[in-house]
Amino acid sequence: MPRYKLTLEYDGTAFVGWQLQTNGFSIQQALEEAVAGFCGETARVHGAGRTDAGVHARGQTCHIDLIIEPSVEKLRNALNAHLRPHRISVLSAESVGTDFDARRSAISRIYRYQIVNRSTPLVLDHNRAWQISRPLDAYAMARAAAHLTGYHDFTSFRASACQAPSPMKTLEIFEVTREQDNIHMTVRAGSFLHHQMRAMVGSLVLVGEGRWPEAQIAEILAARDRSQAGPNAPAWGLYLQAVLY
Amino acid sequence: MPRYKLTLEYDGTAFVGWQLQTNGFSIQQALEEAVAGFCGETARVHGAGRTDAGVHARGQTCHIDLIIEPSVEKLRNALNAHLRPHRISVLSAESVGTDFDARRSAISRIYRYQIVNRSTPLVLDHNRAWQISRPLDAYAMARAAAHLTGYHDFTSFRASACQAPSPMKTLEIFEVTREQDNIHMTVRAGSFLHHQMRAMVGSLVLVGEGRWPEAQIAEILAARDRSQAGPNAPAWGLYLQAVLY
Repeated sequence: MPRYKLTLEYDGTAFVGWQLQTNGFSIQQALEEAVAGFCGETARVHGAGRTDAGVHARGQTCHIDLIIEPSVEKLRNALNAHLRPHRISVLSAESVGTDFDARRSAISRIYRYQIVNRSTPLVLDHNRAWQISRPLDAYAMARAAAHLTGYHDFTSFRASACQAPSPMKTLEIFEVTREQDNIHMTVRAGSFLHHQMRAMVGSLVLVGEGRWPEAQIAEILAARDRSQAGPNAPAWGLYLQAVLY
Repeated sequence: MPRYKLTLEYDGTAFVGWQLQTNGFSIQQALEEAVAGFCGETARVHGAGRTDAGVHARGQTCHIDLIIEPSVEKLRNALNAHLRPHRISVLSAESVGTDFDARRSAISRIYRYQIVNRSTPLVLDHNRAWQISRPLDAYAMARAAAHLTGYHDFTSFRASACQAPSPMKTLEIFEVTREQDNIHMTVRAGSFLHHQMRAMVGSLVLVGEGRWPEAQIAEILAARDRSQAGPNAPAWGLYLQAVLY
């Protein structure tokens, strides 16, 4: 069966998340319905990873096996036509071998978290960023984030429901940048624990607000205790930027 | 009466435009209702200029006269609380003298037009930019735009309904930049004719697509004939970025 890799953009606001669920409409379901609408096939869409309800993507990837073999342009355009009612766009379709697996073949994932640091409500970035009124020291956040790069036990930044077999992860990059009111945190890792990104951001914001010293991030990491870390940052500021193969 | 200057961000999508109208809900009406909700006063909100239905703002300004004299923080926060159902945010409130007039005191306006040059539908930028599938040559657009800077008769880029007494305008800056798929056109002028920005962008896109030579922009300008210019670019890519005083 011909296998295709799809690269996706989506606005996570109206979805229950990536994964098929009984309690609402997921991105996976929207894609599977679009495939059925296009060619009548009941194909399973295999994502590179799950994103939570409200989390966005600029570069989620997935693969599907079809019986028919459309050109990549036709597949991309047809899926986009069937996805029109939803806030999902197929940015590209590529033909791949059956040894390609969207999840297992991935080398790294890049997530980005967007904060707008101002005291007034977001309008153009509504549901696209976390608005924080207290002034944030992005340099302090960047220094604190440096404690998280490398190979560590991230138990303190892991949801209790996380199903990963091990809490050991390597953060290859943790970049904190500020441009006027916009603070971006970009993190690259082979894979992430459930809620890891949001727990790390929620903790770094407490450092940025001056409520925690920078070194506390290192102490929390060493504690291996979820109750030590800050609350999860809201989903709507988080973007799956890219999956690298 | 104490006079206040307000700086506003808004998502123009759901509004009939800046100006009070009988056929729908305007930004001006939303603001006047917020003022009434806050202090019970029926104050007229005077904008620096009108924006069309669907046009956004990152820095529209207006002034209001009140009978009470709240602090600028209280006024800003109270208006934002009353504006919560709408996609309007008061970024700042300032106390100004009664010689300040949002429209007449303005020295320059800056508009920005956002294009995303890709062949797939916009999701995160839905209603925020003009998606154009054909490859655009932004350098050709920039060279063509250079014909429009300076003091000219802009009759060819003016809506027939335009009420300005003169078609003569000076474009101080016309910048065209490209970063990956994003093309931004930023224009600064003392004031603009009705639909001028959208007519100029619509024409430059035809140059960018290679359907018109660059010099045609100069010929259209010289023709002083609206039928020579391209169609208006859609409202949803346009932003009133700032009003300078």
